Amino acid sequence: MTVSRKFAISPTRAEDYPQWYQEVIKAADMAENSVIRGCMVIKPWGYAIWERIQAALDKDIKATGHQNFYFPMFVPLSFMAKEAEHVEGFAKECAVVTHHRLEAHPEKGLVPAGPLEEPLVLRPTSEAIIGEAYSRWINSYRDLPLKGNQWANVFRWEMRPRIFLRTSEFLWQEGHTAHATDVEAIEESETMLEVYRKLSEDFLAMPVIVGKKTAREKFPGADITYCIESMMQDKKALQAGTSHFLGQHFSKAFNIKYLSKEGVEEFTWTTSWGVSTRLIGGLIMTHSDDDGLVLPPTIAPIQIVIVPITNKPEQAAAINSYCQKLKQSLETLQFSGEVIRVSVDDSDKRTGDKLWGWIKKGVPIRLEIGEKELLNEKVFIGRRDNAPSDKVSLGCDEFIKAAPLMLDAIQQNLWQRACAYRDEHFFTVDNKANFVRYFEDKAVKTGFVMAPWIGDETTEKWLKETYKVTARCMPLSHQTQTGNCIFTNEPNAPYTIFARSY
Amino acid sequence: MTVSRKFAISPTRAEDYPQWYQEVIKAADMAENSVIRGCMVIKPWGYAIWERIQAALDKDIKATGHQNFYFPMFVPLSFMAKEAEHVEGFAKECAVVTHHRLEAHPEKGLVPAGPLEEPLVLRPTSEAIIGEAYSRWINSYRDLPLKGNQWANVFRWEMRPRIFLRTSEFLWQEGHTAHATDVEAIEESETMLEVYRKLSEDFLAMPVIVGKKTAREKFPGADITYCIESMMQDKKALQAGTSHFLGQHFSKAFNIKYLSKEGVEEFTWTTSWGVSTRLIGGLIMTHSDDDGLVLPPTIAPIQIVIVPITNKPEQAAAINSYCQKLKQSLETLQFSGEVIRVSVDDSDKRTGDKLWGWIKKGVPIRLEIGEKELLNEKVFIGRRDNAPSDKVSLGCDEFIKAAPLMLDAIQQNLWQRACAYRDEHFFTVDNKANFVRYFEDKAVKTGFVMAPWIGDETTEKWLKETYKVTARCMPLSHQTQTGNCIFTNEPNAPYTIFARSY
Repeated sequence: MTVSRKFAISPTRAEDYPQWYQEVIKAADMAENSVIRGCMVIKPWGYAIWERIQAALDKDIKATGHQNFYFPMFVPLSFMAKEAEHVEGFAKECAVVTHHRLEAHPEKGLVPAGPLEEPLVLRPTSEAIIGEAYSRWINSYRDLPLKGNQWANVFRWEMRPRIFLRTSEFLWQEGHTAHATDVEAIEESETMLEVYRKLSEDFLAMPVIVGKKTAREKFPGADITYCIESMMQDKKALQAGTSHFLGQHFSKAFNIKYLSKEGVEEFTWTTSWGVSTRLIGGLIMTHSDDDGLVLPPTIAPIQIVIVPITNKPEQAAAINSYCQKLKQSLETLQFSGEVIRVSVDDSDKRTGDKLWGWIKKGVPIRLEIGEKELLNEKVFIGRRDNAPSDKVSLGCDEFIKAAPLMLDAIQQNLWQRACAYRDEHFFTVDNKANFVRYFEDKAVKTGFVMAPWIGDETTEKWLKETYKVTARCMPLSHQTQTGNCIFTNEPNAPYTIFARSY
Repeated sequence: MTVSRKFAISPTRAEDYPQWYQEVIKAADMAENSVIRGCMVIKPWGYAIWERIQAALDKDIKATGHQNFYFPMFVPLSFMAKEAEHVEGFAKECAVVTHHRLEAHPEKGLVPAGPLEEPLVLRPTSEAIIGEAYSRWINSYRDLPLKGNQWANVFRWEMRPRIFLRTSEFLWQEGHTAHATDVEAIEESETMLEVYRKLSEDFLAMPVIVGKKTAREKFPGADITYCIESMMQDKKALQAGTSHFLGQHFSKAFNIKYLSKEGVEEFTWTTSWGVSTRLIGGLIMTHSDDDGLVLPPTIAPIQIVIVPITNKPEQAAAINSYCQKLKQSLETLQFSGEVIRVSVDDSDKRTGDKLWGWIKKGVPIRLEIGEKELLNEKVFIGRRDNAPSDKVSLGCDEFIKAAPLMLDAIQQNLWQRACAYRDEHFFTVDNKANFVRYFEDKAVKTGFVMAPWIGDETTEKWLKETYKVTARCMPLSHQTQTGNCIFTNEPNAPYTIFARSY
């Protein structure tokens, strides 16, 4: 008989998944809701994770031939209006700057003053402001392809904010490219989709499905929206990144033309693509457990934490120096192409608080160093992917030699665990009755359900209203296959994945 | 007799310094004015420089024990009002968000809708929004010091914008710390001032004077504002960075208290400090010449550019492969702790355009590789700190061996040139008549003028109105010395540096 232990996070995932998510973030001290509704403060532990995502992705963005730049955070109101679908898609979420100073008012105190001639919209995304620049920067085919990217904050007013997953202000990168041909632009969108897949899977150990969005789920102003969709531990889907083939929508709206080799004036074909701080939400919900955050070693700001333990003051110096030497030895080693990140926790907190603190922060390996370890040249090891009480003792040298392999084993374990979870909750069906069973009120099984679907609006509406289920994507793995639509029975229906989602 | 040659930048510095500055930026393709008045687009070459500044400074910020975080870009109007000097200092420059969506109006088209209950100010700086968080995050002396930093965009409405130097939106880092004692907080401000001095001098080769601002020039809400002041080639001063000891102004306004070891509730002492994209303006104006941008090797995104030259198609492959091999050899070497950054320009532009293009972009070393170089295993070298026509030939192996030294020589040369220029235009005076001579209408000599000054308002006003001269700082190098005020004859006047400024 297993006696159930107390977990560090309350409620547990089973008890209340959405609240568990908030508590994990709080326990790891990653972020908090700001006094400004819908906005978040990203605290050092959360921001260190974002910095690591940025560094890894920025390298790949540059390796695929893009250059970083920076555009103003404002879009003039008139620019927003130029692409019809675009403005319709974002109008309800736009923060608008209308005044350019503050003035003391005799009764009301400080009030906005100096009304602007043309209000400025805080960028919800930058196709419009960048489109205008590209129309000036591009003249001939020699200027193409033009491949830029920026790391920036963006703003979309959010009615139901949830930290990292949906916040009014968030941090992201947005790539914007212009090409001479549609083929080349589609290739670009697919290249960046692959960069995002790699980031998610190889770096965050977060399995994703790559696919295309349905007509109604695509980006306002795109011809094709590619996406990566990931399954969280409540079996909901998270759209973790998108890459858009924008056709000539923005070229025509902003007059982005070039003179071809043949001397003919042509519109360019453009793309845009982005991932955001939302990825951190996905990371949390993919790996974490009822004891808090779990971080794959690749992304962990600290990979190994060393905790000196003694209540004999006369021993403290020897133990501390043992810990520091251990740290130095570990720092001569590499994991995944980088020096191993080690920290000694010599704060004056209680040992139990320290150890639980690092568990809740998701650090992959904890080393406890006490008298026994000092005298026997050992280390006492806890792995974050095991239960907190599941610890082993190893010779110090033996551990040092094995450390990179142990980090790799943790990385692989988290990856395989996440893949197994996703696969267990992925179903392919060939009729409506079976489909519905997965999303019924008392469905034992739910998750991602794939079926051939013709893409009709009636079904889409019905699924959303009845089951809160949406079409997540048409997976690229099945793009050459079709079947009879399970809802309308029409032939040649593409395989589509459905799920509840964030 | 020297025949004057044509320069790449028109007008030259002597002809029209402000216009020369704009033209250098344009010729190097670093940035442009945005369609939004007062805002700039930082183009890839300018942004790569900013990324290098960020990387170097971020390392030092972390090495001095700070952690990065990210706060929302908004400050609620009521927060701004909490510190009286602060709001007075920034009220005239605040962009205000008043609405949270756009709506189609039958006559006016798209209009702002959804008025906010409390308007939101775009952060001109984040003392207020961070102060509120610190008041919650800090409880006891164990939470101190609290040392955070963020990389962010900020907004200050600018009436007379000038690219990089004064823009309504700019990029910066802002550090915010809280301490138990005033001594510790002052030490922190001085530590960060030293980090900024090092960044400016060692990394940007830009000599600075470190000092304290006078009462009227300090930050709104600070007790002491430390600054680094640099001299541009028009002899004007540029405030390149500031570090503020904020006393208890913000602690009291935002209730940032801690429980001391003795169990007494105390207000903390806070600091803030920042440098911005303005540094790029300073970099440009310190080193550049009438042929365009000049970059110290430490900061140059490309340190060595290799230009293959041939008009014999049958030779192109051999020359290109020679260039690629040369690049690979150079990339095995380091300068200033980093792999040397090399690029081969095999674009299809004309050779002259290529070479002038790289001169205007400020690349430290240009290598021309033609038939002669190929056959004799040589390189033909142009250094950006020499005249464009001043080139030398070296054996390829010899150059490779010497490359790090040559980069170092360029770095030193630019540094010494800038120091010499600053020293030549730095004057110490002991009476008013001599002082005035330096700033008269037809003054042959001008620059930084240092004199003992008691700090009276009458003089400050008179200098500003008559000569457009302001007190730049009281240099730390002279903080133990005083003299008789040259304006009021009062004794014990601190040495103060005056100049025209940006």
